[in-house]
Amino acid sequence: MSKKKNKPFRPKARRPRGFEDRTSDVLRAEARLIEAAFSVYDLHGFEPLQTPAFEFADALGKFLPDEDRPNVGVFALQDDDEQWMSLRYDLTAPLARYVAENYDALAKPYRRYQAGSVFRNEKPGPGRFREFTQCDADSVGAAGPAADAEMIMLAADVMRAAGLNDGQYAIRVNNRKLLDGILEASGVPNTEAGAEQRLQVLRAIDKLDRLGAEGVEALLGEGREDESGDYTDGAKLGAAGIKAVLGFTTASADNRSDTIQTLEKLVGQSERGRSGVDELVQIDSILNAVGFGNDRVAYDTSIVRGLGYYTGPVFEAELLTEIKDRKGRPVRIGSVGGGGRYDDLVSRFRGQAVPATGFSFGVSRFLTALERMDALEAEVKPPVIICAFDKGLMGEYFKLAGELHAEGIRAEVFVGSGNVTKQMKYADRRNAQVAVLMGSDEMDAGQVTLKDLYEGAKAAAAIESNAEWKSTRPAQETVARANWVTAVKAMLAG
Amino acid sequence: MSKKKNKPFRPKARRPRGFEDRTSDVLRAEARLIEAAFSVYDLHGFEPLQTPAFEFADALGKFLPDEDRPNVGVFALQDDDEQWMSLRYDLTAPLARYVAENYDALAKPYRRYQAGSVFRNEKPGPGRFREFTQCDADSVGAAGPAADAEMIMLAADVMRAAGLNDGQYAIRVNNRKLLDGILEASGVPNTEAGAEQRLQVLRAIDKLDRLGAEGVEALLGEGREDESGDYTDGAKLGAAGIKAVLGFTTASADNRSDTIQTLEKLVGQSERGRSGVDELVQIDSILNAVGFGNDRVAYDTSIVRGLGYYTGPVFEAELLTEIKDRKGRPVRIGSVGGGGRYDDLVSRFRGQAVPATGFSFGVSRFLTALERMDALEAEVKPPVIICAFDKGLMGEYFKLAGELHAEGIRAEVFVGSGNVTKQMKYADRRNAQVAVLMGSDEMDAGQVTLKDLYEGAKAAAAIESNAEWKSTRPAQETVARANWVTAVKAMLAG
Repeated sequence: MSKKKNKPFRPKARRPRGFEDRTSDVLRAEARLIEAAFSVYDLHGFEPLQTPAFEFADALGKFLPDEDRPNVGVFALQDDDEQWMSLRYDLTAPLARYVAENYDALAKPYRRYQAGSVFRNEKPGPGRFREFTQCDADSVGAAGPAADAEMIMLAADVMRAAGLNDGQYAIRVNNRKLLDGILEASGVPNTEAGAEQRLQVLRAIDKLDRLGAEGVEALLGEGREDESGDYTDGAKLGAAGIKAVLGFTTASADNRSDTIQTLEKLVGQSERGRSGVDELVQIDSILNAVGFGNDRVAYDTSIVRGLGYYTGPVFEAELLTEIKDRKGRPVRIGSVGGGGRYDDLVSRFRGQAVPATGFSFGVSRFLTALERMDALEAEVKPPVIICAFDKGLMGEYFKLAGELHAEGIRAEVFVGSGNVTKQMKYADRRNAQVAVLMGSDEMDAGQVTLKDLYEGAKAAAAIESNAEWKSTRPAQETVARANWVTAVKAMLAG
Repeated sequence: MSKKKNKPFRPKARRPRGFEDRTSDVLRAEARLIEAAFSVYDLHGFEPLQTPAFEFADALGKFLPDEDRPNVGVFALQDDDEQWMSLRYDLTAPLARYVAENYDALAKPYRRYQAGSVFRNEKPGPGRFREFTQCDADSVGAAGPAADAEMIMLAADVMRAAGLNDGQYAIRVNNRKLLDGILEASGVPNTEAGAEQRLQVLRAIDKLDRLGAEGVEALLGEGREDESGDYTDGAKLGAAGIKAVLGFTTASADNRSDTIQTLEKLVGQSERGRSGVDELVQIDSILNAVGFGNDRVAYDTSIVRGLGYYTGPVFEAELLTEIKDRKGRPVRIGSVGGGGRYDDLVSRFRGQAVPATGFSFGVSRFLTALERMDALEAEVKPPVIICAFDKGLMGEYFKLAGELHAEGIRAEVFVGSGNVTKQMKYADRRNAQVAVLMGSDEMDAGQVTLKDLYEGAKAAAAIESNAEWKSTRPAQETVARANWVTAVKAMLAG
């Protein structure tokens, strides 16, 4: 196809935008985090599930938690049989399909955990990718708040399993029914007819951080003109309604029982609101019995994200420790995961109510936070590098490596090309501590030379001349092959 | 959009064909197998890498090992900017792109491992999916056979790490240069001009199992008419060439050194053939030094798959134990992974030679084999089920579960709805051994009732009447709450 003959096509080595390659440290940390979460879920009797990357587009639907952007993109393509398939954008919609497809075969409640890539066909940005990892646990078929309490306790236990101390995180809990109830008491019907008004209220509350109480008050009422002169229509609540909603967002106290008391007053006689409070009471009683204190799980009515998506209790996992960016400025990490009760997702397929509740961690965001908090475990050590400069001794070099492997010590023979200088440079780039040298003279004498590259670098900084270096050969020792593994261990230890 | 108003759209709960849901046992086994392989790769100094699911279509190219089906399908879609992206069909092509993109930043040889989903847009069939898991290790930048020897040893060590005993598997090694050399000695030039003829030879050899030596002899020569009268054109080798090729396919002896001697004669003076033999000699010397005997690594000239794709040594991991299908008939599992040297893949991007060698396990196929050989480790135990039939005691039930969790015992509170009968049915479906019951009377008395469902089922089979059952209550005991965890442990222990 090329016009220039004899010149082969040479593709550019690059990735589509918004897709990333991930390497050693990040992947090892991710594996540890997911393993920690899975252990918690396993201990609590959950079972693993892995659904495929593709679902039929109609089965997937559009059920993203972020109501503000209902047209958020998916990656879709048409199959041979002309049916549209989409790559999953979360792990919840495929779970709903799985449960609906296998409904009678599953013991219910069906509780599963799953981690994997999800795909969003959106504009990428810094830290915002089109493929990223989620880690979810869900409980399908359990209507009562006990299942929600279980999800909350799991989330808190995953935070601990990830290496965080109590006090460094909090699971924050809200309940959609509370705001529904307060709005019902303020004349917004708890039906489809009030849906748009409820959504406007949610959007207004979500701006509390940015606009303050006064701005939100305007948005809950008639509307608000911003500094640029743009006018945003308000939710048209009356004065009592506005007061109740603003009171709701600041109802959280330091402990759950105080918050419950405040909420009981706010929801008044609304049946839905009272049901929401009752759920929080039941969850609180379970948390107290098992010993999940207010430092681990807080009731927080300012949690708004997801209130339009979830149907009952809503959870967020927040990191509290103030962390700093590379320039030492404080960074608020905030939420690293969220979840809640969603009773509509499976019923979409089956036409009958199937209650469900779940929790999802954003793995990358969580890892970034843990990294900045220095809460990640120690990394895997770099390998010992066996230099290979005598081709005739190749088998012996691998034998040396094998002797270290037998002791569980990471080790490799340099299998590339290049002299010892190049091989030492490779060892440096791998950040190796120990390099092993054995020429035929040493082989015949039953000896091995070990170099401590960490100590060598320190010594090099202190030595003035090349001549001095050559005469002293610091951080290097020649040992008998009979006990060379012991010598390597000693060098690695000290 | 629906014509019938008020009737909501109800999607069917089903998957696109060729995509599977995977559950507990399979996923736990897969996680263990991949973890075992990763541990081996880590010990040998390899580093993890994870490339994204999507690559630009031109970067991916068409480099599947299976030359017979060059048009094998990929899943492709056009991005916003009109560029075509494809889901990866293996983990090797993305590795080539990654290395080319980061060439200067990588310490070479660059040795990485990776596991993940790959996608093939092909006709699915039994055991043949459009998304499946591969687990790869590759070494890029090492030209010599030492790197190949390392890959072979890694593959053999992964077989052990997967729980297989020596003798239950073999890594079989061939070298593409051998056949090239033999054909060169028979007048087929080792250039592009001889490519089609070489391919025909490979196809002919591949039919040895099915057609026998006589049929293959015809296909290597003028051609062959099959029973249906269809005529297949032959590779047009002369009598000496045919004899050499057939001699090559049966050149393997029980040990590597004998095979090497036979091959030395067969390749004659062909430079390429001699180079192939020399590589096998060097690999053999490393294998012998580290102690990889003929039972673990065999030289096998009948290995043809991949000879057209790889450029030097070719490997296959084969399971040798005869296993049986569900009807007790013997099943040959054969290859569970393969690899070899591919020196062209990265150079495609860079226009300069970048040697590479690697090995890939087909995880699902490997697992199926291990399962049938009973070589998989014991499964995770089912959870203890805490029945929850008194709503007022919900917190206490979770407290009981927490006490088991603290001892590392899988346990869950039944969070669904239903009476004790329904809850015991759930426990049965979860295959649980122990169910825990505690009503308010027991709570007040500081007691807990434990049921051994395994023993209960045995006892039930031996008991004649419902009345007898009720009076004896077999396999059930009421214990003091002070030491109930000890009692659960004793029941689980047997």
